[in-house]
Amino acid sequence: MANKPSIPKGTRDFSPMEMSKRNYIFNTIKEVYALYGFRQIETPAMETLQTLMGKYGEEGDKLLFKILNSGNFLSKVSEEELHENNAPRVASKLCEKGLRYDLTVPFARYVVMHRDELQMPFKRYQIQPVWRADRPQKGRYREFYQCDADIVGSNSLLNEVELMQIIDTVFSRFGVRVVIKINNRKILSGIAEIIGEPDKIIDITVAIDKLDKIGLDAVNKELAEVGISAEAIDKLQPIISLTGFNEDKLQTIADVLTTSEIGMEGINETRFILDTLKKCGLKNEIELDLMLARGLNYYTGAIFEVKALDVQIGSITGGGRYDNLTGIFGMPGLSGVGISFGADRIFDVLNQLDLYPKEAVDSTKLLFINFGEKETEYCLPIAAKTRNAGISTEIYPDTVKMKKQMAYANAKQIPFVAIIGENEMADGKVMLKDMQTGEQRLITAEALIEIIS
Amino acid sequence: MANKPSIPKGTRDFSPMEMSKRNYIFNTIKEVYALYGFRQIETPAMETLQTLMGKYGEEGDKLLFKILNSGNFLSKVSEEELHENNAPRVASKLCEKGLRYDLTVPFARYVVMHRDELQMPFKRYQIQPVWRADRPQKGRYREFYQCDADIVGSNSLLNEVELMQIIDTVFSRFGVRVVIKINNRKILSGIAEIIGEPDKIIDITVAIDKLDKIGLDAVNKELAEVGISAEAIDKLQPIISLTGFNEDKLQTIADVLTTSEIGMEGINETRFILDTLKKCGLKNEIELDLMLARGLNYYTGAIFEVKALDVQIGSITGGGRYDNLTGIFGMPGLSGVGISFGADRIFDVLNQLDLYPKEAVDSTKLLFINFGEKETEYCLPIAAKTRNAGISTEIYPDTVKMKKQMAYANAKQIPFVAIIGENEMADGKVMLKDMQTGEQRLITAEALIEIIS
Repeated sequence: MANKPSIPKGTRDFSPMEMSKRNYIFNTIKEVYALYGFRQIETPAMETLQTLMGKYGEEGDKLLFKILNSGNFLSKVSEEELHENNAPRVASKLCEKGLRYDLTVPFARYVVMHRDELQMPFKRYQIQPVWRADRPQKGRYREFYQCDADIVGSNSLLNEVELMQIIDTVFSRFGVRVVIKINNRKILSGIAEIIGEPDKIIDITVAIDKLDKIGLDAVNKELAEVGISAEAIDKLQPIISLTGFNEDKLQTIADVLTTSEIGMEGINETRFILDTLKKCGLKNEIELDLMLARGLNYYTGAIFEVKALDVQIGSITGGGRYDNLTGIFGMPGLSGVGISFGADRIFDVLNQLDLYPKEAVDSTKLLFINFGEKETEYCLPIAAKTRNAGISTEIYPDTVKMKKQMAYANAKQIPFVAIIGENEMADGKVMLKDMQTGEQRLITAEALIEIIS
Repeated sequence: MANKPSIPKGTRDFSPMEMSKRNYIFNTIKEVYALYGFRQIETPAMETLQTLMGKYGEEGDKLLFKILNSGNFLSKVSEEELHENNAPRVASKLCEKGLRYDLTVPFARYVVMHRDELQMPFKRYQIQPVWRADRPQKGRYREFYQCDADIVGSNSLLNEVELMQIIDTVFSRFGVRVVIKINNRKILSGIAEIIGEPDKIIDITVAIDKLDKIGLDAVNKELAEVGISAEAIDKLQPIISLTGFNEDKLQTIADVLTTSEIGMEGINETRFILDTLKKCGLKNEIELDLMLARGLNYYTGAIFEVKALDVQIGSITGGGRYDNLTGIFGMPGLSGVGISFGADRIFDVLNQLDLYPKEAVDSTKLLFINFGEKETEYCLPIAAKTRNAGISTEIYPDTVKMKKQMAYANAKQIPFVAIIGENEMADGKVMLKDMQTGEQRLITAEALIEIIS
């Protein structure tokens, strides 16, 4: 007796129903990306460890899935190294490849490798799985999809505007009400400068980033712990608790930052983005959130994050401007800006709000009941016609009890069943049963196509 | 200076143009699968080695990409084992997971794990990459997509018929002329029986499978080498060289196999499939090829293979009936039949015959030239309208020389460019340039949408 099979922890199988819903999400995002001129690329699941290592911090390196070299993988490790029992060092001898951790580093690698073929500005989107050896927990998986769009090779803030429009369009199509929060890393740098802690911008943003999760007191405590002076923390308080209209906030912070060149740059950028977006007729609210920091340290300008208004869940989309992503691969000075939709969380949101359109989760529309060889022969050309008309059609393959076949139709939620026996064949017709109303009609193949289409 | 980045050998990046073409292939296959009531599933890239090992023969086990355990992966290996230098054995201690090698074994694992949720017969399709540590060569990659459809839980030959219809429809939609070759493993078993080598069926099929590649003499030589008697090889000759209409071939082989029960079963099955297909109005030819064997040993009934008529290339689709795929996971007695489209080869065929429809490779339809902030402000609401009308639209993000912007339009093959300066703004109109004819027209936004749509 074979062992009961299982799948690696943190991974998932997706059933037909889940796939229908996921495809609806991916297709909606793809369509909107394409509407703005973004084009799809794909990169390999495996990248060299040289490409991946050192790009996600020490913690990230540990979370990379590494692939054992083929053949005699032990030949590159010395006895001594084996004895040292230094896992990372031995791993680097056993493995040359790893599974991609995100889509951003492979994209940067792609841009550098294909720089001569690319027309700048280059607008690409990419929807592929990524892998992380994280501890699996509710809503956190070891394999999950990212849905990224980036523009590289343009400093224009119109790109930021466009990405906000894309976010607005995608969630409007989903029917999910959201608030799109924006901020700018340069404003945060300005704040750090003004409060006299210019080198601590990363510590400050990391601490502030947790405001929603841990509250103001804990943030202040963390700021103190990372060495921000009490005076500086005091100066931060009015900014942290700033509320009101975007324009008012922007004016208040502009007053505070007048002497900070970088701070004022961030304010001007933000003003341009907000002013321009006003002319684009967005359906969702844009909120300037001066406390929005986002964890990733490669952001250098505008940053964004999307929250669902009607579901309690973390950020469902995020992104920002980075100034030097390809620098790590020897191609400096290329600015970019991007967003990433969180497919798994959007899946949960659409589930909770029951927002999947019926067509998106539909499958077979028509099932022919199988009464035997002669009847099936009669059904085959009709089924060919319905399929030609674009109607998803099945003929039950086995001649089994009608009850079993009807149970199949019910389980697959097939809305129409064609029942064809002696009489129908003699008449040259089809008995069509509407599974919702129970109504039966004796009709021609042509009428059947008209009814179901 | 960073090292020049690269990707692992045998893997590929896919450019926007390649992705458009690949998506056209995948979407066509998906649509046809759905038209026949197949529904999509996905399984994780990683499977446990317990699921993967021993399913693809000894050679296959070596070709599995194995994933190094996270954390202190050395702890499970003893000093002694390390010294033995037995790579496969150490690998089994260092790794618990591997990348899937095909979609069939994960599907069998899926069916067994989800048996209680599945409605039988279960019709699923799956389009995902697989990985093999094969030596890379022209047309052979270490990461490639498979596009499988299978029906499990039904013995009916209507399933075979349906899969042939699917193949016919897919290649008709592609515009590729093909011949669909079919045979039956039971006929091959019958032949082995009749020539007095009933236990050598696998050796015989493996040798015969190479007929196209190595020729008759070499096949005969290989048959002798694996221990088939000269007499048996003699008896095989007229069968190997059999030509003519399907019915004639079937009659001839039926006469030879009258005393073989399994052989006659194969003949009856084949006759049913061929007869039924005649009523389905296929556009491509079905050819009974008694020498078709297919390498995979799990096939037990009908087998199929598709050849392109107008391109010199190997089989572009294949499949067959297997009787006990889930048995390896403790669920015996479940019969299935499936096909697999070879996406990479189909990609090459469509390229060589230049068969991609224009719409499939289209991207942006309209580009607004950027003359500055004021002009862009005027363009934004028009761009919103064209996008609402489903027209893929870009506004060039940077205010740079017109020549550079036109070069961008040309490089992306954008068919229409909107040029809006002082005059157009004063008129409330748009100057639309048709990039193919060079013609320019001063028109309203509404007229523009009408022209491009």
